[in-house]
Amino acid sequence: AIDHARLLDRLQRLGAVGRTASGALSRLALTDADREGRDLLAGWMREAGLEVRVDRIGNIFGLWPVSQVADPVMIGSHIDSVIDAGIYDGCYGVLAGLAVVEALRQAGAAPARPIAVAAFTNEEGVRFQPDMMGSLVHAGGLDIDAALAAVDSDGCVLGEELARIGYAGDLAPGAIRPHCYLELHIEQGPVLEAAGLAIGAVDSLQGISWQRVTIEGAANHAGTTPIAARRDAGLAAARVIAHLRDRVAGANAGTLATVGSLRFEPDAINVIPSRAVFTVDLRDPEEERLQAAEDSLARFLEGLAESEGVTVATERLARFQPVRFDPALVGLVAAAAGRRGLGHRRMTSGAGHDAQMIARIAPAAMIFVPSRGGISHNPAEFTAPADLAAGADVLLDVVAELIEA
Amino acid sequence: AIDHARLLDRLQRLGAVGRTASGALSRLALTDADREGRDLLAGWMREAGLEVRVDRIGNIFGLWPVSQVADPVMIGSHIDSVIDAGIYDGCYGVLAGLAVVEALRQAGAAPARPIAVAAFTNEEGVRFQPDMMGSLVHAGGLDIDAALAAVDSDGCVLGEELARIGYAGDLAPGAIRPHCYLELHIEQGPVLEAAGLAIGAVDSLQGISWQRVTIEGAANHAGTTPIAARRDAGLAAARVIAHLRDRVAGANAGTLATVGSLRFEPDAINVIPSRAVFTVDLRDPEEERLQAAEDSLARFLEGLAESEGVTVATERLARFQPVRFDPALVGLVAAAAGRRGLGHRRMTSGAGHDAQMIARIAPAAMIFVPSRGGISHNPAEFTAPADLAAGADVLLDVVAELIEA
Ligand SMILES: NC(=O)NCCC(=O)O
Ligand SMILES: NC(=O)NCCC(=O)O
Repeated sequence: AIDHARLLDRLQRLGAVGRTASGALSRLALTDADREGRDLLAGWMREAGLEVRVDRIGNIFGLWPVSQVADPVMIGSHIDSVIDAGIYDGCYGVLAGLAVVEALRQAGAAPARPIAVAAFTNEEGVRFQPDMMGSLVHAGGLDIDAALAAVDSDGCVLGEELARIGYAGDLAPGAIRPHCYLELHIEQGPVLEAAGLAIGAVDSLQGISWQRVTIEGAANHAGTTPIAARRDAGLAAARVIAHLRDRVAGANAGTLATVGSLRFEPDAINVIPSRAVFTVDLRDPEEERLQAAEDSLARFLEGLAESEGVTVATERLARFQPVRFDPALVGLVAAAAGRRGLGHRRMTSGAGHDAQMIARIAPAAMIFVPSRGGISHNPAEFTAPADLAAGADVLLDVVAELIEA
Repeated sequence: AIDHARLLDRLQRLGAVGRTASGALSRLALTDADREGRDLLAGWMREAGLEVRVDRIGNIFGLWPVSQVADPVMIGSHIDSVIDAGIYDGCYGVLAGLAVVEALRQAGAAPARPIAVAAFTNEEGVRFQPDMMGSLVHAGGLDIDAALAAVDSDGCVLGEELARIGYAGDLAPGAIRPHCYLELHIEQGPVLEAAGLAIGAVDSLQGISWQRVTIEGAANHAGTTPIAARRDAGLAAARVIAHLRDRVAGANAGTLATVGSLRFEPDAINVIPSRAVFTVDLRDPEEERLQAAEDSLARFLEGLAESEGVTVATERLARFQPVRFDPALVGLVAAAAGRRGLGHRRMTSGAGHDAQMIARIAPAAMIFVPSRGGISHNPAEFTAPADLAAGADVLLDVVAELIEA
């Protein structure tokens, strides 16, 4: 059986790595804090008797039995975080994977099929885009050299940062080809809690469209420039944000739209902004509606040249179609939850996950546990210990079946 | 007569102090670049035979004849700049004042009344608020200790920065009490150019209201948080920007409204902003309309708690009522322009100026010269050399009259 206390203890210890002065966790991909978290994880893997391998994009694989890389059951997630993050997002799935191997070893299991516990690089995509980068490279969806060339907003190059923190491995991306893939994760949304259920058997994942928009207007004096003469990049950005809420992601639409990052230049109180740079995150479970949302944004941006006298450029940061997970694997998850007497349902995922990428090369599914208040990407992110334990138990049961198959 | 070539040369030389990597001028108040600019100016003043005195807020006064501080005709402006500034804003008036003294000295004038050339600290108000700080302290409108305690967005304290750059003088604020005050400045707006006139005799200056608004929502996941559950501080900020344009500063209103600075937290692509902090700059020549604009903003901010589920706090950064300048001085400016055969008109100022503060303690007026395209607070700010020369000539004529009175 899973050692629940050790799992919870490790979650807290890993969650303590990368706290900022304010006390919040910020362990962005390929920072010093990420290195510290990786070192901690790799140490725990070795202690547990796993063999640690690192590939060229920095994905970490813990192999059991050692030296067995052929066709493993892969259990994965990530340990990088957003800014001011919670401690569960990603880490829970990786540490639960490790706990599953420990439980099987302790029970003296002699698996017909090996297990690989994976921690994928840069799942969050806050510092380097796209998100789910490590698993996307693993699945062959992004060229390794393109990934290593990604640049953050300070001009740091991903490949250099990876080498700096000592995680530029030599394993070829995708070398460890999974027989199938399972990911246990907190829901990060309100569905399970609202329904009073312990387990989500995740059968699909919505599409994600990320863009960066740059609007160029003209700086001028706030006190002397008549309204009609203004080319206010900040106002134009505000119009886009309102459009996305009012016309694209209205309360009854299936589409979500978020502008999470926005910067003005020169960003001074008495200067009309000459430039606004912001991100647009669009999501929809239906590919057609996601395209319609992108089209609506594109048309609105075109109109801004006319209405606000600005110029607009867009850059694609990420684009993933909705994914359907493997029905057989999803069925195993639901059945395992049922055998444990846990309330469960099939559901879709609002967040992007590494499983979405690995689904391109292997049967994949996910297990969700409830998030209190549906809060995530926030220091207040919380899942009750009993729910964390239940999720790990279901993962154990499913993996135990799969390694005999 | 004014040495026009020297004036233009000094403008270029002072304008070269504080260039950033991009080539634009950013000489924010009390930075190292400000120190360099001040050293250059003080050196030129001493070379020209003026006595340099510095007061406790760092205002620089060049006195001629030396040791004469009683009841001078004061000619002033400022040499601090905004971010990515032009080279004319402020510097032109200070350097023209110096050129006037040099012209009078060279002509062997023996004035009945002394002259003080003033460079006031932190007129722009970009780094420390309020704007026109040095002249406001000089006029007794802001306590010196309160001014020295002002803090910038990095937590630097004004008094410490002033000492650091060596311009914490010992002269008591307001000790040099002007008999009257003149300020020559580029218009920074489109009026004179559009009218084909060389000189503005500035008879009034609009009211200025500056506030900082902080909106607090809740960070959450961009992919999992239903629209109805969001408390999006960034969206709320966008709504305020749109309200200011659509309901407060519409194309036909007399009011101007500008949101020049805006920052999101945590400012990440897949996180709903938990906080938005932005500035609001409202201006109107009519005090009643300015108050109505402030009221409209306050009501809209109150409504945001209801409509967007956010909390809102405001902080007053500056508040100045509209000012009418001294009619007799304005008349002298118009008459001098007329005698020189220069096209001119009486006009109002859209920008705030040190003259607006000094008008509280002495008769004051301003002289404007055209700004090409009405562009200011922008590296493209430009005034033709002939216009710069004409403005300085008018200033000389008026000062020559005043020092005999
Ligand atoms: N699970 C998670 O938070 N992934 C980050 C990528 C996303 O924004 O959905
Ligand atoms: N003249 C000038 O640009 N002053 C700065 C204060 C303002 O914003 O009006």
